[in-house]
Amino acid sequence: MTEADARLIAETARAIPALDEAAGAAARARQARLTKPPGALGRLESLSEDIAAMTGRDRPRLEHRAIVVAAGDHGVAARGVSAYPPEVTAQMVANFLGGGAAISVLAHVAGARLRVVDAGVRGPTGDDPRLLRLRIGPGTADITEHPAMPPEHARRSLAAGIELVREEHDTGLDLLGLGEMGIGNSTAAAAIVAAVTGLPPRSVTGRGTGVDDSHYAAKIAAVEAALARHRSVGGDGVSLLASLGGYEIGVLAGCYLAAASLRVPVLVDGLISGAAALVAAAIEPRAARYMLASHLGVEPGHRATLEHLGLRPILDFELRLGEGTGAALAMNVCLAACRLLDEMATFDEAGVSDSDQATAPED
Amino acid sequence: MTEADARLIAETARAIPALDEAAGAAARARQARLTKPPGALGRLESLSEDIAAMTGRDRPRLEHRAIVVAAGDHGVAARGVSAYPPEVTAQMVANFLGGGAAISVLAHVAGARLRVVDAGVRGPTGDDPRLLRLRIGPGTADITEHPAMPPEHARRSLAAGIELVREEHDTGLDLLGLGEMGIGNSTAAAAIVAAVTGLPPRSVTGRGTGVDDSHYAAKIAAVEAALARHRSVGGDGVSLLASLGGYEIGVLAGCYLAAASLRVPVLVDGLISGAAALVAAAIEPRAARYMLASHLGVEPGHRATLEHLGLRPILDFELRLGEGTGAALAMNVCLAACRLLDEMATFDEAGVSDSDQATAPED
Repeated sequence: MTEADARLIAETARAIPALDEAAGAAARARQARLTKPPGALGRLESLSEDIAAMTGRDRPRLEHRAIVVAAGDHGVAARGVSAYPPEVTAQMVANFLGGGAAISVLAHVAGARLRVVDAGVRGPTGDDPRLLRLRIGPGTADITEHPAMPPEHARRSLAAGIELVREEHDTGLDLLGLGEMGIGNSTAAAAIVAAVTGLPPRSVTGRGTGVDDSHYAAKIAAVEAALARHRSVGGDGVSLLASLGGYEIGVLAGCYLAAASLRVPVLVDGLISGAAALVAAAIEPRAARYMLASHLGVEPGHRATLEHLGLRPILDFELRLGEGTGAALAMNVCLAACRLLDEMATFDEAGVSDSDQATAPED
Repeated sequence: MTEADARLIAETARAIPALDEAAGAAARARQARLTKPPGALGRLESLSEDIAAMTGRDRPRLEHRAIVVAAGDHGVAARGVSAYPPEVTAQMVANFLGGGAAISVLAHVAGARLRVVDAGVRGPTGDDPRLLRLRIGPGTADITEHPAMPPEHARRSLAAGIELVREEHDTGLDLLGLGEMGIGNSTAAAAIVAAVTGLPPRSVTGRGTGVDDSHYAAKIAAVEAALARHRSVGGDGVSLLASLGGYEIGVLAGCYLAAASLRVPVLVDGLISGAAALVAAAIEPRAARYMLASHLGVEPGHRATLEHLGLRPILDFELRLGEGTGAALAMNVCLAACRLLDEMATFDEAGVSDSDQATAPED
């Protein structure tokens, strides 16, 4: 299995194309002819142009939207880093499927199908046929003392994410959002961010779900211990994931790689989704070209992650939930930006007089 | 007519109720029991609580949404303050109805009905039966030399806005967005902002649709001249509107008053929609309680307006278009916030273990 997984990962990474600059330029030229002053739609114009360059389509429609929420447990939760007990991971998987979680509601509002993945939850996650059971491992080991997972599990989780997005793409996939759930995973994510950016653990470790001072001190200590262990391991993406990551982080990193290889724009959600993006970019930097930052979260490591990836957040709602909630909210903005590009009339079509400053159209 | 208009305006202003603090508190208490860490949905939580207090409903649904776009022409356009010729106002009214304008597209994405109003366009606006023809005057006079309109026209435009929203409310109205179109109207709006806030004209006058340096100098000079004329007029809302406003600004100001009197939350759009909000708040300060700031636009006067009204913008996309585009974009956020409040499961309902820091529920 591990040979085939390594091949799939390498082949997917190699297949990530350059952005389609011609499609981006065509979108930009069209924006200039639409019935509005040039640039008046601000960020929505550049967003539509970026999506055109990613998808290779002058007028992308984003009809098929999906959100993948991957869940996994973390050995480091035993270190008292979270205010919630580990069984909440499995309970929330049931809640995602039952429609009661924030992402269940927001996926519906976004018109996106929701794919819930058990990437490596410790306890049983029930028998709902809608749950995608990957269960690559029974939660990670405690990263303060051990690698999170063996390297073959790291590769399996990446390959499973790739397979998942390929299947979704066969169904129809124009825009993807990536979220997660896992008690303890903001500790693992902070360790990944610190390892990749070189920033001190304290500066990228936040209060996650909102822990009190004693949990927070334990969390910073755990990130520091995990990083100290990790320094001897090395810097490639698979080692990073195996040392500090999580099963859900690996699956999401595979999703980023596959989406990029298929020209599907991907919305990065919060800190953990961002850490998975860092893993994907460590494996293949071109993956970052297909990423969009849905929002700026409260976690300090989130800002550092987006800056490292060169991404500018679309929304700023002070979210700190994960699950893909920010990604789902930003989907509507991406959809609106692309519908404007596609559906608005040009000055000629609408018979509207253009500005006395209008320059000759470029094409 | 003017007696009846004055009565309607006064009666509507008087009818604006206090916020329903009990509904807001009930929403806040419910947020604390939903399956997420307390506060993890950030701005969306406070937004849902604010909407609960406005509507008087613990779990508002915002099923019926509408956007009113009012158009009017401005005599000050003759001063060279815009890069577009005045006939664009009428042309854009046709474009709104034809589906080719930005707001046509965004209202559809927001699931909102679009009501296009000819409040006082100079030229003919065609015979589309969907157009609401108020045509209170044939565009305003040049505010650098004359009052924009006679006081009875100011009252008529306010009353017409009130009547419009009352009719919309009879059809079903849970959330309203207010946009506008009018060549020259960012000059009138800047003059209103300067008059209300006391800020120097130069600091609240922006480039509107994106004028070059010579247009911009003419625009600042026009705002300064209009303000100098206005100082002798007095500070009440009707005088403000009659001296410096526009027919579309008056209609929108009436919409704000009526929406507040009916407990309908209203999304303020850009600078001109904001100037109309200032007129409404000058007539009755309680109207501002029912306003939500959809976005922070590029125009410097917009920030000053939102600060004066005590409103915090939801989005920041560097928009400078008007038409209600920002309001339409923020509708989805309001909808998402309220759906989360209404549809998410509580910890008890979902069988999810709460945090070890959870305090006893308040009710």
